[in-house]
Amino acid sequence: MTIQEIFDRPEAFDFNVPTLGECTVDNPVRDTVFVPDGARTLIRHNAEYVESRIRAGLPVPSFEKAGPHRKIFHAPAWCRAAIVTCGGLCPGLNDVVKGLVQTLWFDYGVRHIFGVRYGLEGLVPSYGHEPIVLTPEDVDDIHQDGGTILGSSRGGQDTATIVNTLSHLNINLLFCIGGDGTLRAARDIAEEVLKRKLSISVVGVPKTIDNDLAFIGRSFGFETAVYETGHVITCAHVEAKGAPRGVGLVKLMGRDSGFIAAYAAIANSVVNLCLVPEVTFTLDGEHGVLTALERRFGIGKSHAVIVVAEGAGQDLLQGETRRDASGNVLKKDIGTFLKTKIEEHFAAKGAPVSVKYFDPSYMIRSVPARGSDAIHCCLLAKNAVHAAMAGRTNCVVGKCADVYMLVPIALATAERQKLDVSGPLWQAVVDVTRQGEYMGYEPLVRG
Amino acid sequence: MTIQEIFDRPEAFDFNVPTLGECTVDNPVRDTVFVPDGARTLIRHNAEYVESRIRAGLPVPSFEKAGPHRKIFHAPAWCRAAIVTCGGLCPGLNDVVKGLVQTLWFDYGVRHIFGVRYGLEGLVPSYGHEPIVLTPEDVDDIHQDGGTILGSSRGGQDTATIVNTLSHLNINLLFCIGGDGTLRAARDIAEEVLKRKLSISVVGVPKTIDNDLAFIGRSFGFETAVYETGHVITCAHVEAKGAPRGVGLVKLMGRDSGFIAAYAAIANSVVNLCLVPEVTFTLDGEHGVLTALERRFGIGKSHAVIVVAEGAGQDLLQGETRRDASGNVLKKDIGTFLKTKIEEHFAAKGAPVSVKYFDPSYMIRSVPARGSDAIHCCLLAKNAVHAAMAGRTNCVVGKCADVYMLVPIALATAERQKLDVSGPLWQAVVDVTRQGEYMGYEPLVRG
Amino acid sequence: MTIQEIFDRPEAFDFNVPTLGECTVDNPVRDTVFVPDGARTLIRHNAEYVESRIRAGLPVPSFEKAGPHRKIFHAPAWCRAAIVTCGGLCPGLNDVVKGLVQTLWFDYGVRHIFGVRYGLEGLVPSYGHEPIVLTPEDVDDIHQDGGTILGSSRGGQDTATIVNTLSHLNINLLFCIGGDGTLRAARDIAEEVLKRKLSISVVGVPKTIDNDLAFIGRSFGFETAVYETGHVITCAHVEAKGAPRGVGLVKLMGRDSGFIAAYAAIANSVVNLCLVPEVTFTLDGEHGVLTALERRFGIGKSHAVIVVAEGAGQDLLQGETRRDASGNVLKKDIGTFLKTKIEEHFAAKGAPVSVKYFDPSYMIRSVPARGSDAIHCCLLAKNAVHAAMAGRTNCVVGKCADVYMLVPIALATAERQKLDVSGPLWQAVVDVTRQGEYMGYEPLVRG
Amino acid sequence: MTIQEIFDRPEAFDFNVPTLGECTVDNPVRDTVFVPDGARTLIRHNAEYVESRIRAGLPVPSFEKAGPHRKIFHAPAWCRAAIVTCGGLCPGLNDVVKGLVQTLWFDYGVRHIFGVRYGLEGLVPSYGHEPIVLTPEDVDDIHQDGGTILGSSRGGQDTATIVNTLSHLNINLLFCIGGDGTLRAARDIAEEVLKRKLSISVVGVPKTIDNDLAFIGRSFGFETAVYETGHVITCAHVEAKGAPRGVGLVKLMGRDSGFIAAYAAIANSVVNLCLVPEVTFTLDGEHGVLTALERRFGIGKSHAVIVVAEGAGQDLLQGETRRDASGNVLKKDIGTFLKTKIEEHFAAKGAPVSVKYFDPSYMIRSVPARGSDAIHCCLLAKNAVHAAMAGRTNCVVGKCADVYMLVPIALATAERQKLDVSGPLWQAVVDVTRQGEYMGYEPLVRG
Repeated sequence: MTIQEIFDRPEAFDFNVPTLGECTVDNPVRDTVFVPDGARTLIRHNAEYVESRIRAGLPVPSFEKAGPHRKIFHAPAWCRAAIVTCGGLCPGLNDVVKGLVQTLWFDYGVRHIFGVRYGLEGLVPSYGHEPIVLTPEDVDDIHQDGGTILGSSRGGQDTATIVNTLSHLNINLLFCIGGDGTLRAARDIAEEVLKRKLSISVVGVPKTIDNDLAFIGRSFGFETAVYETGHVITCAHVEAKGAPRGVGLVKLMGRDSGFIAAYAAIANSVVNLCLVPEVTFTLDGEHGVLTALERRFGIGKSHAVIVVAEGAGQDLLQGETRRDASGNVLKKDIGTFLKTKIEEHFAAKGAPVSVKYFDPSYMIRSVPARGSDAIHCCLLAKNAVHAAMAGRTNCVVGKCADVYMLVPIALATAERQKLDVSGPLWQAVVDVTRQGEYMGYEPLVRG
Repeated sequence: MTIQEIFDRPEAFDFNVPTLGECTVDNPVRDTVFVPDGARTLIRHNAEYVESRIRAGLPVPSFEKAGPHRKIFHAPAWCRAAIVTCGGLCPGLNDVVKGLVQTLWFDYGVRHIFGVRYGLEGLVPSYGHEPIVLTPEDVDDIHQDGGTILGSSRGGQDTATIVNTLSHLNINLLFCIGGDGTLRAARDIAEEVLKRKLSISVVGVPKTIDNDLAFIGRSFGFETAVYETGHVITCAHVEAKGAPRGVGLVKLMGRDSGFIAAYAAIANSVVNLCLVPEVTFTLDGEHGVLTALERRFGIGKSHAVIVVAEGAGQDLLQGETRRDASGNVLKKDIGTFLKTKIEEHFAAKGAPVSVKYFDPSYMIRSVPARGSDAIHCCLLAKNAVHAAMAGRTNCVVGKCADVYMLVPIALATAERQKLDVSGPLWQAVVDVTRQGEYMGYEPLVRG
Repeated sequence: MTIQEIFDRPEAFDFNVPTLGECTVDNPVRDTVFVPDGARTLIRHNAEYVESRIRAGLPVPSFEKAGPHRKIFHAPAWCRAAIVTCGGLCPGLNDVVKGLVQTLWFDYGVRHIFGVRYGLEGLVPSYGHEPIVLTPEDVDDIHQDGGTILGSSRGGQDTATIVNTLSHLNINLLFCIGGDGTLRAARDIAEEVLKRKLSISVVGVPKTIDNDLAFIGRSFGFETAVYETGHVITCAHVEAKGAPRGVGLVKLMGRDSGFIAAYAAIANSVVNLCLVPEVTFTLDGEHGVLTALERRFGIGKSHAVIVVAEGAGQDLLQGETRRDASGNVLKKDIGTFLKTKIEEHFAAKGAPVSVKYFDPSYMIRSVPARGSDAIHCCLLAKNAVHAAMAGRTNCVVGKCADVYMLVPIALATAERQKLDVSGPLWQAVVDVTRQGEYMGYEPLVRG
Repeated sequence: MTIQEIFDRPEAFDFNVPTLGECTVDNPVRDTVFVPDGARTLIRHNAEYVESRIRAGLPVPSFEKAGPHRKIFHAPAWCRAAIVTCGGLCPGLNDVVKGLVQTLWFDYGVRHIFGVRYGLEGLVPSYGHEPIVLTPEDVDDIHQDGGTILGSSRGGQDTATIVNTLSHLNINLLFCIGGDGTLRAARDIAEEVLKRKLSISVVGVPKTIDNDLAFIGRSFGFETAVYETGHVITCAHVEAKGAPRGVGLVKLMGRDSGFIAAYAAIANSVVNLCLVPEVTFTLDGEHGVLTALERRFGIGKSHAVIVVAEGAGQDLLQGETRRDASGNVLKKDIGTFLKTKIEEHFAAKGAPVSVKYFDPSYMIRSVPARGSDAIHCCLLAKNAVHAAMAGRTNCVVGKCADVYMLVPIALATAERQKLDVSGPLWQAVVDVTRQGEYMGYEPLVRG
């Protein structure tokens, strides 16, 4: 199913999050406003779409609002929670862990909270990673550091083994912080739990630095990642200007979606070419990257800055497909490929260029979340706890227009969210970089 | 009119933006997707509200979507644009100016762009501030610097004089970047323009570091301001811990709305008390701030960090009301007042405290916008140009759930947006600070 | 005694550091090169001075080189060390504490290390501040935070009481990190210790963010402080440019010596006037500060940035002398005084200015030390431990031209080091700011 | 000749800087203190060395003090200066350029200042790089940016051609900012100038981010580079801790000298192994790097951080020697070599590690200089101008113990300065990392 199909026929999909059972326990959260049962928020706001469907008696897509419920499913005094962080690092992991622990402890009085070490490995006894006990004191300062105090790992593990472990340890609240693969694993766990008639809430906090999950709004860490690109792009610009015909080439994250590259190009308006997976390109020919560089040097510019998402231009690269431990297709290295091709091309023309190549991935994803991104982490965590305590399962927390809501995992992982190359964001990239002109799609204006 | 009234009876208000006349000129923007005429976006997404009103045949509040129109009102070759920045500094002003100039120049081919110096003063000849000519080259690097290259000033000027100046200079596109007062001035200008049957589009880019304008979504600069609070709060924490019974007291922006203080308290979880205009407090008594400090010191904590919005606790302060040049009520200084009261209180008890006071306002508002905040500035600017070229006037650009839209100035300035003290954001502040416990509203838990 | 007198007649002063007795214990430090007994380093490098004095058979000033000695005085297994941090915060305090603990523990095997809480108060039992035990694990991360984990306080305490406490606790190594006043207290303690024939080494690590101690080279934290001024001066510049006739006025540390202000003016070349304690100035008259501003505005500049050291212009301020708990004369507030005088002066002339005032002291001194400043802290600490273990006392560690050395406290506190206003550093300030021209001492060149 | 030989027999070397002729022109610098003719500063401060040599009637090494002279050689009104920046980027290049321009213009009134584009290429007409004219306004803001506004290039050019160009353009002041190779080129130019009896002062500002030039003190940019390592090492630490048996491996600059790596290891005390060119190491065997990692994992540590200078371990790498355009031997890539070897070793043992590799070179060298490093640049530049105006040539500016001085190029390039592995700095590295224990040279202590 694609995002478009879901919007075209919402009646064919289930927007509801499953619950483990009736909520009968009083919520101990003090001095708050509870979310009304059944409160939902629209996720598409096009007035014509909404009005015409409703007038026709057709449903419009909406998700359950997240928040504390007056009655909850799990009795706090008996709760045992587990938190696991999976996949590559992303800014904000520690904020989410801290937010989960603080909300469980202070709002609900849960006193048994375990941190699973090194991703799903930590739920498979044979790896020998002992869990750690988490209290508010343990997590008090962790938001100041990047990474995750729990450690992480890539790759799936056997669902039955994981459920055995949870069951054996009497865990009834499992929080999975991870990306596409992790959330599918969480879905499998949640389904196995239901099959075994266990009472374990499985709630995900979606993590994707690429911002490529559907329906959840901007993913945590993305804002910080965009901010962090500023430093490296400035360095690339300085290096490019420092040599005759200097080229600063920066590879950024983005396996299937070019959000970080696109945002970085707008936020740092020294970028001259922005290459993303959503837009095919060639090296040679009238509209090729090499020709674009020639056009730029041709109007007297002595340097160029190129940003390329790691998943861009994969069709240009030879070789067999490899996958990482998480099952993601390993992208072939478009960065060094471009560096070589550009150098060779201009050397052959007798006008050698100096390409400085930057691959800052680890330096972007390992910083702590900042400002409003940290707040987003905190609120995602709080709402994940509210959802789990109210017996919701097989879901993730998302945000739409400042409203937090619960999204079935099946929908969040339905299709990768991609840049809309006919929308205003990509239009802004094209405007700011003027790459349409360099690439020969528009007349080149000097100045 | 209040925001609540508008949502309760949207049929009583005009959500449409006026236009100067029929759009008959082809839009020269290349290779884009135009916004369909009449496209609107919903601004309230509560499913029950929307569905029940539509089923009942009642209107739901929506604004016109912003974006490039296939047909525009002003012929670009004849256009003369003026840009003015008003009021106090805010991160992102230069990004907005740059975005306006680039979009006018590159997208529409407008070649006469003037920067008005020092706010509305620059439109009143007697001040003698000559405007500056703006080209893409002039603004190429300005996003790297805080402040505004145009300069700014506070205070209104005579509407008729301003319209005379615009008319005299043949300006037909006026972009006003400013806050509440500036936008009201822009509305007066737009109305005077219509009365005189001139063809001048007056479009605002709303600027409020306090995030207190209605219907426009998060205001530009706010995200950066929240981020910048991190450094000063860390310093306050370090100073507080450095002395026996040390108190770090930080005054943050927020005349009428405590958004920055609230966000700062969540993003920097070392804050123990967060005081905002929306929540009344006392110094003495069971629930007073001084008693809260005593409780905190009483459980063995040797330091405290307090964040106070500048508009908080005004009822505690004596003296007559003063106003700044913009007509804003000048807040009495709650920061130094609290510092003195805390010092006196504990000195009188024989347990002197050491209060370190921070007033970082100028150091927060004068930095450049960062990351996604800079992107927001760019997109606000682009959409302001699209609106003005299509003859829209007396409006501002806003954003709701990633959709940019046009809001009549009258609605944007209807009522100050305030913190919802019964909503999840303020709940998160209370949870993170644990100030309900310190202030005696809940049992104090050690640890 | 003044620094000049000491250089003029070194034969009249004692450059040697006292020792507690003969060193008979083998140094357990592994795999190192010991400092030869009697190794000394020259502290004045003027070739003519050195050569003529030596040829005349006169002594030249030199200090004992610091470093590990083959034989030491204190048997490590019996050692009990105490560390105290005093006075205002300064970048690098935690680095020094960490360096002391690590060197004691790993190099010498000392296992009893105490952190004295809140300055000298912590050595006076009646305050009730319990010391904390320090191990390498306790201090492993503390260099990442500003301030001091031990806390600090101002003010002296009774020497006899302190020595009683040290004696009672069997402390034989006391490390005092502090400024002028603290070092004098350390000298009194060391002398009382010798009088009582105790075997306690008292070694200081001189702390003065103002860089105003003699003979010790650049004090730790100074480099970081200079770096930190960059941000606030940039903000002041942005604010100044943001308003018609805008003035950014920044008060920096510097009670008696203007080093930080002078360095800041060179490192941030947007400063137009730099006012320091070493150079008297007036407000009015041909060479006055107000006239200087008039000259600057008179050549068409619309803004000005002023940096003033807190101890500058004290003769212009009225009122009685007050002292802080450390006995330092409290400087009257030259910053707000200047702000008021400038505003009044230009308002009276009908050309009002907009003065934005910055007082960033706490935000500068509370950051962690950076880069080579952190390394300086580490090496000061290591050499302090080496000195104390070798029975040196009543001394501080200093550095001259990359060589660490031991300086008697009496000399380090002989006279405050001040800016040489006829030297190249101040000349650079005058060149970069061009303040000689603005202040009417030189013809004013436009451009 | 080696540094040691020079200190052993200073009488065999010439410490004097040549001059073009008698100084007869009045220095126009206003209001300064001139440096006395013949003033010299000692460069070795070991008291015994200095005293014994002088008593024996032997010379001690000293250099001429830098500074403004009362009488100068070049008449300012006739002067034409050229500035060239060569080799790889380094923090502070723009500060030096700015300092040169400002001092020439404001102090001496020189009005013809040329910026040579792209290194020595810009002095060879066939490259076609036109020089740019430099005024104080052109350089006013450049210190805020990394890199060099002049551009740079690697590699030497024909000396006769360069002197022809200088002569043709009537240049009489040439400032060369560059490293080892550039300074040798400058020496050749100066010698050719003298041979042709031209009156061109050739003065160098030594640039080496590796800090490996002799006699000049700490090179500009080094301090900033050390500071910048902090961020990447923190990221490496976070990544290392984020995976089971994670290794963060950081390659830093340092072709022949490990100063940056050593300073970085002390300043960022999370480093566990620091590998430099001065210390040979093996991979396998009792003292090998792989065994060291095993020892660390063996005591229960689950991560490790390694810093390696680019010139370390070259003997371990196969393959033929290659050189860059500057003639420097291109170091083989020890970073990726180590990454591969570590991964293979542990994979073969069935305990796979996760190595995250960082190569931040371009991101370190392209930032602007900070704080006191920027001041150092300014003072180097001022003294270079003073020297050139006074007819000094074939020299560079250096600094020893806060005194600026003039060093013959022959001595500055005599031998690369290296880490003293028996000195206190390296000892501090060993202490902070505890690498002696991990590498099996000392008993391993837990904790």
